Amino acid sequence: MAQFLSKVTIIGIDPGLQRTGWGVIHAQNNRISHIAHGIIAPPNDATLSFRLGMIFTKLSEIIDEYRPDEAAIEETIVANSARTSILLGQARGAAMVALEIKSLEVHEYATRLIKKAVVGTGTADKDQIGFMVRRLLPTCGNVGIDAADALAAAIAHSSMRTSPIVRAK
Amino acid sequence: MAQFLSKVTIIGIDPGLQRTGWGVIHAQNNRISHIAHGIIAPPNDATLSFRLGMIFTKLSEIIDEYRPDEAAIEETIVANSARTSILLGQARGAAMVALEIKSLEVHEYATRLIKKAVVGTGTADKDQIGFMVRRLLPTCGNVGIDAADALAAAIAHSSMRTSPIVRAK
Repeated sequence: MAQFLSKVTIIGIDPGLQRTGWGVIHAQNNRISHIAHGIIAPPNDATLSFRLGMIFTKLSEIIDEYRPDEAAIEETIVANSARTSILLGQARGAAMVALEIKSLEVHEYATRLIKKAVVGTGTADKDQIGFMVRRLLPTCGNVGIDAADALAAAIAHSSMRTSPIVRAK
Repeated sequence: MAQFLSKVTIIGIDPGLQRTGWGVIHAQNNRISHIAHGIIAPPNDATLSFRLGMIFTKLSEIIDEYRPDEAAIEETIVANSARTSILLGQARGAAMVALEIKSLEVHEYATRLIKKAVVGTGTADKDQIGFMVRRLLPTCGNVGIDAADALAAAIAHSSMRTSPIVRAK
């Protein structure tokens, strides 16, 4: 049975203390289009708490500007390093607070699910993701790695949000 | 040379997704006194983003109520589990965003430094910390583990904030 869905605006986030990528797309049925993307990059000498505050504040401004309906974020697990994980976790926490405070539904997707949705294989590398993001969103222009990962999360969500399996989760 | 310092209000935080402990003390020269403490405990069935939003919102309210001048937080490293670390990191990130947005100076202390400052040894256990927190803050009443750890961070900061070594960091 065909589904006719109203247009939704989706924000994808790729959080990091050095660079947090973000990307906004429109999705309607099987069509997606690029709206905006960018990175939040605190100065090199910024303290941890400044970085976290900046991720929160800038994301809040981006949400106010583009008014996404739903949010997608990678469910990152960094193997073998508790120290890296706790640092990344903090960036993720700051980003998720911004999404939650703006009452956005936050959907988490495992890295391999995002890769599978965008590239077709769960083992794709960064270059393949960038390539497919530019193919799927031809008007997106120049996109760095972090924003491409954020757009990939948004694209993955656009294809999975209407799946009965994901919806039942 | 004796130092005569004005009274400061310090908030200590022990972040966690299940329970975030917080404690507020006054400190002046070598004297400290208990103001308040508590825990932020989201419902058992709460989603990750709800938990992070609640940590941020409740901490923001607590800061508005007690108006601390400075904040202390344990610099946690969870060895051997990247998964636990990323979860804890997210709680920590949500807490630190609240402190940063309220323009509080955030001071991070290693666990062993906090234990050494409060109990006298870097290898003290939870019971010893709770015991010493109640000794040092006799009016604090009943304090659970999480709030005791938060008060311990605040006590440690009160004793280290005027140290020339810590100040030079």
